[in-house]
Amino acid sequence: MERTERIYMDHAATTPVSEKALAAMLPWFREEFGNPSAIYDYGQTSKNILESCRKRFARCIGALSSEIFFTSGGTESDNWVIRSTLKLKGAKGQHIITTAIEHNAVLRTLSQMEEEGFEVTCLTPDAQGHITPDQLENVIRPDTILITIMLANNVVGTVLDIPALARVAARHHIWFHTDAVQAVGHIPIKVHQLGVDFLSVSAHKFGGPKGTGALYCRLPNHLPALLTGGGQEKEQRSGTENIPGIVGMTAALEEAVEDMPQETGRLIAMRNRIIESLCSIPGVKLTGDPENRLPGFASFMVEGIGHSVYIVNALNEKGICVSSGSACSASSREASHVLLAMGYDAKQAAGALRITLGRDNTKEQVDHLLSVLPDVILRQREAQLHAK
Amino acid sequence: MERTERIYMDHAATTPVSEKALAAMLPWFREEFGNPSAIYDYGQTSKNILESCRKRFARCIGALSSEIFFTSGGTESDNWVIRSTLKLKGAKGQHIITTAIEHNAVLRTLSQMEEEGFEVTCLTPDAQGHITPDQLENVIRPDTILITIMLANNVVGTVLDIPALARVAARHHIWFHTDAVQAVGHIPIKVHQLGVDFLSVSAHKFGGPKGTGALYCRLPNHLPALLTGGGQEKEQRSGTENIPGIVGMTAALEEAVEDMPQETGRLIAMRNRIIESLCSIPGVKLTGDPENRLPGFASFMVEGIGHSVYIVNALNEKGICVSSGSACSASSREASHVLLAMGYDAKQAAGALRITLGRDNTKEQVDHLLSVLPDVILRQREAQLHAK
Repeated sequence: MERTERIYMDHAATTPVSEKALAAMLPWFREEFGNPSAIYDYGQTSKNILESCRKRFARCIGALSSEIFFTSGGTESDNWVIRSTLKLKGAKGQHIITTAIEHNAVLRTLSQMEEEGFEVTCLTPDAQGHITPDQLENVIRPDTILITIMLANNVVGTVLDIPALARVAARHHIWFHTDAVQAVGHIPIKVHQLGVDFLSVSAHKFGGPKGTGALYCRLPNHLPALLTGGGQEKEQRSGTENIPGIVGMTAALEEAVEDMPQETGRLIAMRNRIIESLCSIPGVKLTGDPENRLPGFASFMVEGIGHSVYIVNALNEKGICVSSGSACSASSREASHVLLAMGYDAKQAAGALRITLGRDNTKEQVDHLLSVLPDVILRQREAQLHAK
Repeated sequence: MERTERIYMDHAATTPVSEKALAAMLPWFREEFGNPSAIYDYGQTSKNILESCRKRFARCIGALSSEIFFTSGGTESDNWVIRSTLKLKGAKGQHIITTAIEHNAVLRTLSQMEEEGFEVTCLTPDAQGHITPDQLENVIRPDTILITIMLANNVVGTVLDIPALARVAARHHIWFHTDAVQAVGHIPIKVHQLGVDFLSVSAHKFGGPKGTGALYCRLPNHLPALLTGGGQEKEQRSGTENIPGIVGMTAALEEAVEDMPQETGRLIAMRNRIIESLCSIPGVKLTGDPENRLPGFASFMVEGIGHSVYIVNALNEKGICVSSGSACSASSREASHVLLAMGYDAKQAAGALRITLGRDNTKEQVDHLLSVLPDVILRQREAQLHAK
């Protein structure tokens, strides 16, 4: 294996657009570029593909096409649900429930809501990243208007028991939103089995393009618009529709769902080999749930290395891309709020290492990773010892 | 000329992505797809192109790169300025000034703000779509916190005298925003000559991709974020950056600015031929300013046709795409709020016809349009007479 081959193992940060998705997108940039709002044929062609994508996208997650709204990504979807629910329901109550392991698109938005007078209860997960239905039940108040809990965590890969949590919410008639950005396209998702009212999607996490996402809104839960204007998306999300992006996202999701039966087994096998191999090194421990985790998601706590950024950099020099944690906070050295919430201290959290596999990864690449990573860890531990 | 060739003359609705822009985008979907927040080389490559695009984009409109924030489009940019200014400055005042000819991304957002307790003064333009500095001066109040007036109108093509209007705002120390969605890439723009604090851009109006836009924010006017989360765009606009979109928008804008000296003359010549030819038909009149208008923008009021949607449909059957007005409202038959504000009655406004030229249009296509359109109008007038 050439040292110059790039081995990309940070699929939780972002993924390449799949070949099929890119091929599907291409005709919509220059050949068929009409505005879907235009009444001539050229516009109607765009309108037709838009509505066909909506149907196909909906089918992939077991929704009705009328429940799908296209957005610019997971962050917009999360912001939309939170800001608009509070605007709509603020008169009924001021209390929101979330968890300490959410993505910042949820947590920072809720912080802002707190400044505006809302009250947020932030549930603390167990050591694997789980929240129990009892925990949720215990903090529900008569003025609770929204519960937002992620489906799969982006730092430790744990898949939460959303059906059980959403049932609690439903019993109390409280809207339930899940940020499913890490889960969609990676595990089977049927919105009605999840029992959620709102679900956020980001295309670039499953082989779709950046700048495209969606929000599932269970009928008849109509959210006021966050972006107002031309009245697109049935007045609920204005802005000229990003047709190539939507086409690419839909094609990528269909491909991911279709390939999931085989791909899941392949990814789990590679992931487990990484977990077994690394956890055989003293002072390396798996983070998150060993069983209920995303298929390609391996995450660790590595002791004695000072900060995992050294490991990320050393692997980078060998052409291997892995991460110290969530992409958004990768460039800062702050301890992950997720790991702190799960009970790790700041020193432990500094040793967090995330290796996330995808469609393009091969067994040979995993072999190569495992042939170099133990030595990289060893050297960094030695460097740390000498630095002291 | 084959009847089946499509002649697209609705560039104010949307444009094809230019060949150069698409070519620039392609490597960023699959080859270089790293998350700009990631610290390995693969992420830094994306970070570097992002910041290089910001510099190049800024240069095209005479701004500093630190003044450019990438968004999902013009609608988000407009919503961001309005919603965040009011949040930031609401304590200082409750009064906003706009015009009756703005895009709905401004007008509908302001309507919502009115419901939330803000007061909006909506200036009425003259018959050509202009607002005078005196008009603006007269409605400024001590509690005015924002003035938002578009640079070029999307229904009649009039280019407003923003430098004069922005000077009035500056004298009163009131923030001035301009929706420049129709103008950027079509007329020379230097933000400091305009004197505005904020300027909204949409990529797909000048050969860039849909789903991408920008907001110019004059330093040191820091707007609170509309979308919160991972802290991208210096904490002011969260969400993983749409690298291919931003690369395409930047390439398209550079191309438009570079070609503008030649392209403007070519478009004006074609546009003027359309205007002269159609206005020689009795009962067809130009709308908007005959001089200060966008280069490729021809807009008319056609009497005696009932509704211009008949003309649009008849031309569609001949493979020619034109519009009855703004794209967003094209599918409804409501009279354009812009034309009503300019003093036309609903019956006149129903006869609005918009023909907007772009890079791909040729003299031969204009010849063809002018060889069929007068007859189309005549037949529709006859049909209207018989219908009565």
